[in-house]
This record gives sequence, structure tokens and C-alpha cells, in this order.
Amino acid sequence: MHLPRYPVWRGSARCSDPHGYRNIFYSAAPTLYPMSDPFLSEDPGIRPRRPVVALVLANTMLSTVPGISGAGPTPGATLLTPVLDAELVTTGAITSMPARPNTPTGCPTPAAITRSMVELTGLAPVHINAGLAHTPTVPCLDVYGSPGGDPREGDAVPEAVRLFERGEMVGRLLSQHSDLLVIGECVPGGTTTALCVLRALGYAASVSSAFIKNPLDLKDAVCREVLARISETGAEEPLDILRAAGDPMIPVAAGIASACPGDVILAGGTQMLAVAATVKALGRRVPPLVTTVYIRDDPTAGFARSITEIGTTAYYVDPGFASIGHAGLARYCNGEVKEGTGAGGMLMLARLMGHEPEEIAREVSDFVSRYD
Amino acid sequence: MHLPRYPVWRGSARCSDPHGYRNIFYSAAPTLYPMSDPFLSEDPGIRPRRPVVALVLANTMLSTVPGISGAGPTPGATLLTPVLDAELVTTGAITSMPARPNTPTGCPTPAAITRSMVELTGLAPVHINAGLAHTPTVPCLDVYGSPGGDPREGDAVPEAVRLFERGEMVGRLLSQHSDLLVIGECVPGGTTTALCVLRALGYAASVSSAFIKNPLDLKDAVCREVLARISETGAEEPLDILRAAGDPMIPVAAGIASACPGDVILAGGTQMLAVAATVKALGRRVPPLVTTVYIRDDPTAGFARSITEIGTTAYYVDPGFASIGHAGLARYCNGEVKEGTGAGGMLMLARLMGHEPEEIAREVSDFVSRYD
Repeated sequence: MHLPRYPVWRGSARCSDPHGYRNIFYSAAPTLYPMSDPFLSEDPGIRPRRPVVALVLANTMLSTVPGISGAGPTPGATLLTPVLDAELVTTGAITSMPARPNTPTGCPTPAAITRSMVELTGLAPVHINAGLAHTPTVPCLDVYGSPGGDPREGDAVPEAVRLFERGEMVGRLLSQHSDLLVIGECVPGGTTTALCVLRALGYAASVSSAFIKNPLDLKDAVCREVLARISETGAEEPLDILRAAGDPMIPVAAGIASACPGDVILAGGTQMLAVAATVKALGRRVPPLVTTVYIRDDPTAGFARSITEIGTTAYYVDPGFASIGHAGLARYCNGEVKEGTGAGGMLMLARLMGHEPEEIAREVSDFVSRYD
Repeated sequence: MHLPRYPVWRGSARCSDPHGYRNIFYSAAPTLYPMSDPFLSEDPGIRPRRPVVALVLANTMLSTVPGISGAGPTPGATLLTPVLDAELVTTGAITSMPARPNTPTGCPTPAAITRSMVELTGLAPVHINAGLAHTPTVPCLDVYGSPGGDPREGDAVPEAVRLFERGEMVGRLLSQHSDLLVIGECVPGGTTTALCVLRALGYAASVSSAFIKNPLDLKDAVCREVLARISETGAEEPLDILRAAGDPMIPVAAGIASACPGDVILAGGTQMLAVAATVKALGRRVPPLVTTVYIRDDPTAGFARSITEIGTTAYYVDPGFASIGHAGLARYCNGEVKEGTGAGGMLMLARLMGHEPEEIAREVSDFVSRYD
């Protein structure tokens, strides 16, 4: 199968070349060839000409609770992960501090996969700072929020309503310049806040994890405590639930998705389920999701069941990491890391922009091998 | 003369309508009819299909020196002006605090003119936070700088190199999604830092002012002091001069302009001269400027002479404020306010997007009359 190719722009060198491509877009609409390969579970029927990828970054203090988050070498260091991810995705390397884009167990971070697709497609994501503990090292579209608190101790996101409204402003701004908006996230500890939000919204959800052994007992214990506190406060409206139990990413991403009149795809696993459930509870149009098959196939998460309960659809990307010849990537297939920082969305977008599965796999492999 | 019209999108209502315009752009290239009306001094020959307007916001502590800046009711309050401007341009009103979009002497602020053109064209600017003393009330693309110091007392922008590099990142990001980038600014006190930078770069420049009586003696005295300090430190490289004497806007705007491979226009008066002079000194391609005829006709500023010295061109917009029937706007023609917050650039862009001069004048008049 051959899709029409976009002119490929790679990194800053080409961009600064006045004789090179001025931007990455076709002026004419690409012909829509149907897709029927195992890379994508289903063809969304979209061939974007002006895609924008927005990665919403936030912290929740839950990630500093030992055992909750695998997104950092120590619980405290998880707070830095979104900043390092944004730096890697934007510049192609982490130079602001001595850190490698690998998990503590030696898997490539999902941000490395996202970056490899940036290099393949030439499409640079916009990072949204929804509320971070550390100052980013690259420009971010900032909504001027604060890191989320521990929802066991009190309202986690006191400014949830304002963050939703600012998300709407961001959505209106970005949708002016795009025909497809792909929204990803990076929130260490965010699957636990997502679990709290999904259950508080009435879903019998379980969640995924970046750990190979999902710390479900710990997450469940946190969640029971948070739900008990919510039922004391009587919060029932979706934004009240986010205020009580969420993290700053959820209202911002829900606001962005709500304000976009065009095609929107939520790129991620459990955390984007929480965003979709929020959007639905607010009575807005619920976008589809895209994630990796590693999330779909996680028996502890029940992802596909939640998709059905929310009443939306999901596309699953199978980048074939088992056969790519890289041990760290292969471990994604055994349930480690699985997804994050819009990786599934960027893989799908590369395919929709006409890149062949083999080419995508080679680009991922080449990029992550730099850090072996 | 009739230019092809863009579909007009007004504010959020139309944007949220799934049956309305998905974005403001033509898919086909508009026919290029030559322009020959008195609204624009010269036809730039550009009919943008995907314009992006970036307004770079910053503070310099010079604006708190009594008598330097007219952009606020008191010297201290000038620090808030960029935040209020961004709120007005983004939302159409100032609701975060009790303030009206008029100057202390009752003229409409330039941001009100910019906002009226946002409502006419449907094109919402991206605000860039280059270094502000107060937290913005609307989302901004933040480069995580700090407000500029008083250049008489020490290096005004110690992080000038980093701000230039982050400006380049912003430029690469925005240029992906645009075929014309219009860069404006809002920096109270910024004409004085611009004067210091221009003179340090070797231009015999004078500068404009928002005051009807330009406080040239005060600005000259500041500038002499700053130049003496620079010559002590031996700073000669352009970014060293910005570090010593500039404000955070200048390196960020210069970085953005330097990294854009496509059409760029600097929208503003004296301050954009300083940006253009910096870009030239760095050996990069110098963009043209656009500003109002009120800047060109300011006898104290010598704007056109500086344009020639820098070796670029300028387009001048004449919005005909004398005959619009609004006393505050008419005072622009007598030398008050004159320009700011990308107003001249937005007026030109509205014209390039096919709006007639009469329609532009009516929109400005209608908007500013809300605040009489």
C-alpha cells in the first residue's frame, strides 16, 4: 500500500533554509487511499493537511508517593519528567541536566518514540504547560496553572474551572491553524488521578500503568480514599470532580477538545479516557482515542471496555516493537511503559501522513539506539 | 478596488459551531489584485492564506522610572499593561481587574485597535511571554524569561542569548503553521531600551513615544548613561548589547524572525527597528516593517531615516483616524499613542485579507466606542 508522501522536513537545519520547504503542508488535498495494514486497527479516514499535536504537561503530587509512578528514577524525580520529555521532543536531546531518555529499567521513554516521529514527519508538537513543578527548558503554551495536589489531602486542582476555560482558549487558538488536533499528555502519576476521576464519574474503570507489574492495590487504596472524600464533599459536577480528584492536565485537555470545531483525537491510554469521560459528562462532543496495542492488550486496564462505556471509539497502533530488534522496545510488548507523551498518536499521525510502517519502525529504532 | 474576501469568523460562538467554518483559511490561493489605495503606502504583494500574528510581551524596569512611559496610569502600573493588553486582545474585554482600555489621557489603547481587527478577521494572535513582572490572565507561549532590569544599573537581560535561542524555537514552531508571520510587541518603556540598543549598534537613532510630548531629554540622558556603561564593559556583539541594554522582547523577537524561512513582517515602530537592527547585525535576513503613518510622521523619531540606515523597507498604514468621528482616535493623528501591540500590523493584515478600508475604520470605531 502506498500513500502520497508529504514533503519531509527534518529538524531545524531544513527549516532555516530559505530555499527549502516553507512548511510541511500540501496545498492540494491528498488523495484518500484506504488503509488496510496491521499497523493501524482501523483507518480513521483522515488525511490531515495541517495537523497540530498538543502535548499537555502537568504534575500531580501523587507521583511522589513511592510506588505510584514509574516515570522517573525516584519518586521525587518524577516531577521533572514532563520538562525532560518536552526538551527531548523539541530539541532531540536532553542537555539541561545529566539524564538519559530511558526508564529506570532501561526501556526507551515514550517521549523518545514521539521525538523520532517528529524527525520523520517534521511536525513539531506544541507543549502546553497545564501546571508543572519545574520551569520548562523549552517554550510552552502556558495556561498558568499550578501542579496538582494529593487528592487524598484536599482539592487536587482548586482552579479546575479556570483551567478548563483556558484550555478552551488554547483550543480556539490551535484550531485556527489546523485541520486535525492530536492531544497527548505527560503526567507522571496521572493514571491514578485518571482512575479516581473515572470512578467518580461512575465508570467501573481500572487503569494501566508504566510498571510491568501494575500497582493496582496501591492505586485502588488511593482511589477509595479519594472517593470517600468526594462523597463527603458531595461533588457531582464534572469540573467539581476534577477539582477534587484530578490533575491539571485533565481540565486543560478537556477544554482544548471541547473548543475545537474540527477533528480532534485524544492520544493516550487511561488518562485520555478520563479526558473523554469529562468531555462527555459536560455534554460536549466526545473525540475518539488513539493508543498503542500494548494498552489495549493490558489485561489489568480493561481499556476497550471503558471505551465502550464512554461511548467513543479507539484506534490502536501496532508499531511491531517485538520484531524491531531492540530489547528495550520489545519490553513494551510485555507490558512495560506501553504509551505516553503522545507516542501512539504520533505513530498514527506519521502513518496518516503517508509514511510506511517499515520506515516508521526504522526511524524509532534508529533514534532510540542512540541512547543504548 | 475589491479583494477576495476571507470567510469571516467572529469570536468563540462561530468557532464552536461544528457546522461553521473550521478555520479561517482559503484552500485555494486568492487571486492577487494589486492594491492602490491610500490605506497602505505600498502593496507588499502578499496575500497570506495562513497568517500567524505573534505579539511579544515583556517588561523593562525602565517603565517604572517616572516620565519614561505613557503606557499606564502610573509608572508602577505600566508593568501590568502587557497582561491587560493580552487579555483584551484575546477575550475582547478586561475583566480580571477594574481597568479600561484607554490611556490616562483618554485615547483608546492600541490593543483595542488590534482587538477590533481580531474581531473583523477572526485571526487570534499568539501572545509570547518573553519576560513579564505579572502572571498573564490568558494562555501565552512562554519562553520562561524574566523582566528586564534597568540598563543603567547593570546587565538588563542577562539571559539574552538563551532568549534568542528560545525565540528561534518559537519561530520554527510557528512557521510550520503559517505562510506569513507578523511579529508585534508590547513593552512599556521599550522605546527607551530600543534607543539604547540602536545607538549601541551604531545608528544615530532617535525614537518615538506614546506621549504627545516625547520626553527626549530623559530618554537621551538614560541612553548616555547606558552607552557609557556599555563602553566600559566593551560589549560589541549584538547579543551582548541586548544583554547590557535591551529588554526581553528584542532577543525573543529577533530569534523568531531569524528562524522563520517564510515571509516575516515586524509590526511596530522604534522597537521593531531595534529588532531589525539586531537581526541585521547577526547577519540574518532582515524583514520589512509595518507601522502607522503616525510613527512615520513623528518629527522627533526619524523613523524613515532609520529604516534606510538599516537597509530594509517599511509599509505605512493610514487608518484615517482623523475622519473617523472619534476624538480619542483623532488624537493619534496629533502624535499621541501612535502605535503599539501590533496595531499597525493587524490593520495591514486585515487589508491584505480583503477587508475594505471603510469596513476596517468602522470596526475600529465600533469597538473603541464601547469604552467611551
